[in-house]
Amino acid sequence: MAFEFKIVRDVQWSDTDMAGIMHFSNFFRFMEAAEHAFFRSLGYSIYTTHPERVGWPRVHADCDFRYPLTFEDSVEVHLLVREKTARTISYRFVFRKLNEEPARVVAHGALTVACVTRDAEGRLKSRPIPEAIAEKIEPAPLEMLNA
Amino acid sequence: MAFEFKIVRDVQWSDTDMAGIMHFSNFFRFMEAAEHAFFRSLGYSIYTTHPERVGWPRVHADCDFRYPLTFEDSVEVHLLVREKTARTISYRFVFRKLNEEPARVVAHGALTVACVTRDAEGRLKSRPIPEAIAEKIEPAPLEMLNA
Amino acid sequence: MAFEFKIVRDVQWSDTDMAGIMHFSNFFRFMEAAEHAFFRSLGYSIYTTHPERVGWPRVHADCDFRYPLTFEDSVEVHLLVREKTARTISYRFVFRKLNEEPARVVAHGALTVACVTRDAEGRLKSRPIPEAIAEKIEPAPLEMLNA
Amino acid sequence: MAFEFKIVRDVQWSDTDMAGIMHFSNFFRFMEAAEHAFFRSLGYSIYTTHPERVGWPRVHADCDFRYPLTFEDSVEVHLLVREKTARTISYRFVFRKLNEEPARVVAHGALTVACVTRDAEGRLKSRPIPEAIAEKIEPAPLEMLNA
Repeated sequence: MAFEFKIVRDVQWSDTDMAGIMHFSNFFRFMEAAEHAFFRSLGYSIYTTHPERVGWPRVHADCDFRYPLTFEDSVEVHLLVREKTARTISYRFVFRKLNEEPARVVAHGALTVACVTRDAEGRLKSRPIPEAIAEKIEPAPLEMLNA
Repeated sequence: MAFEFKIVRDVQWSDTDMAGIMHFSNFFRFMEAAEHAFFRSLGYSIYTTHPERVGWPRVHADCDFRYPLTFEDSVEVHLLVREKTARTISYRFVFRKLNEEPARVVAHGALTVACVTRDAEGRLKSRPIPEAIAEKIEPAPLEMLNA
Repeated sequence: MAFEFKIVRDVQWSDTDMAGIMHFSNFFRFMEAAEHAFFRSLGYSIYTTHPERVGWPRVHADCDFRYPLTFEDSVEVHLLVREKTARTISYRFVFRKLNEEPARVVAHGALTVACVTRDAEGRLKSRPIPEAIAEKIEPAPLEMLNA
Repeated sequence: MAFEFKIVRDVQWSDTDMAGIMHFSNFFRFMEAAEHAFFRSLGYSIYTTHPERVGWPRVHADCDFRYPLTFEDSVEVHLLVREKTARTISYRFVFRKLNEEPARVVAHGALTVACVTRDAEGRLKSRPIPEAIAEKIEPAPLEMLNA
């Protein structure tokens, strides 16, 4: 059972905006990259037909920004599983700028994703998380989530 | 005094992802586009030295996604001012897919932005909203915010 | 028979980078937006099952940048059909910054796209342009292409 | 003297589009990431005040696409210096999909960048490449460029 994962990303020139800092929308792309890497760490791809064809649209996303990131900063994106229900997973994310001593927390984020399939008309329909995936994921300890 | 603004955006191919829907990070870019258009409607640019040189980094962003947007959908982004403090503005956003009859609410979002300047070392520092801007903005009526 | 189309786009904050100008990759996104609007002007979507299910991957793209675009600039993207073969279409693009008097040519671009379908294994395979589409498109006059 | 550099990038979900492949504009972002990593390998940042404050806007970009990249593909971006003049550098790029045996060339690209400063009015002006940078860069052997 897994409840956390970490990736490191370097801020690219194309991630910045004319204020000279990383555009805030990219924090959300980094959260998603951590989620997908977490799935790979479990032996699955977020885009899979194995064990069944399911999708994971986002139903909620938020981020609190404390401190800007700039070009060539190195940022750790720390994913924690906050909650797992029959049909959804909620994640917490802590962003830490690594090229500072000590590493500085620059943002906190969250995603809630729902497991779906497409019905005969192609519409996305909520469905239970495949058991083989659900049994590998558990919520992180409260003391980590509240840190 | 103004408390709302609407823009319409068409979902571009490059806004979509391999799930065939608009990537969720673009909802945040659309919110920001509405905020900037709101400022222009007041006679200001979000990037201005007039009346003073200030910046508006985001301190919070969130979005709840109800229904996906797809290529060539037309979406209205309805900005409402939720709160104005001495140093921050909070916005609510309602996304309505227009190419459906009746228009369908597909997402709700929020941004909180802080007024800043750069200090002598180039660090972003919170500061009061310039009066000439503050006096043009007021919170939307509660019945609109709760609709 | 059609050989040109124009769209106007405003440079968004999220289109800029830390040099304070539009990131060069967005010129390519604007070209594609003009191509898709051109198709709509012919009564088709670039993403269509009508008259047949085809796709249009890019096989070539280039751009020459003369002058930067900045936030809130308004740019006309002028598409011209340069060549039509049995299986490909080549476009020329002229970017004109409109919020200057007279409008200033800021970039020239090109795209070549190929008509494809997916074979039984899901691989993209070149195929002839559907006749209903091909008969609506013709190359622009040489004097326009060389302007 | 250096004339080449390689980086490896994994295709992210947000790099894809509704055709299920990496959006073509991202090939240009990957080229730029390789250019910036090349500069770091020389002991410089592309964004530097050392030895002097210069910028490197793109004056030309092109790409030929042979084969699509998809989600979770791993791609090597191989930068080669094609030409160095007093004021510009031209690069060639070869994209190789690594998660195939043997690695498959999926695209070839090119960038030409110009060394600039801002004049008193803030306009970008061409200038010679700082000597300390120029003396570290040389064109790749012809047999590598023509490979």
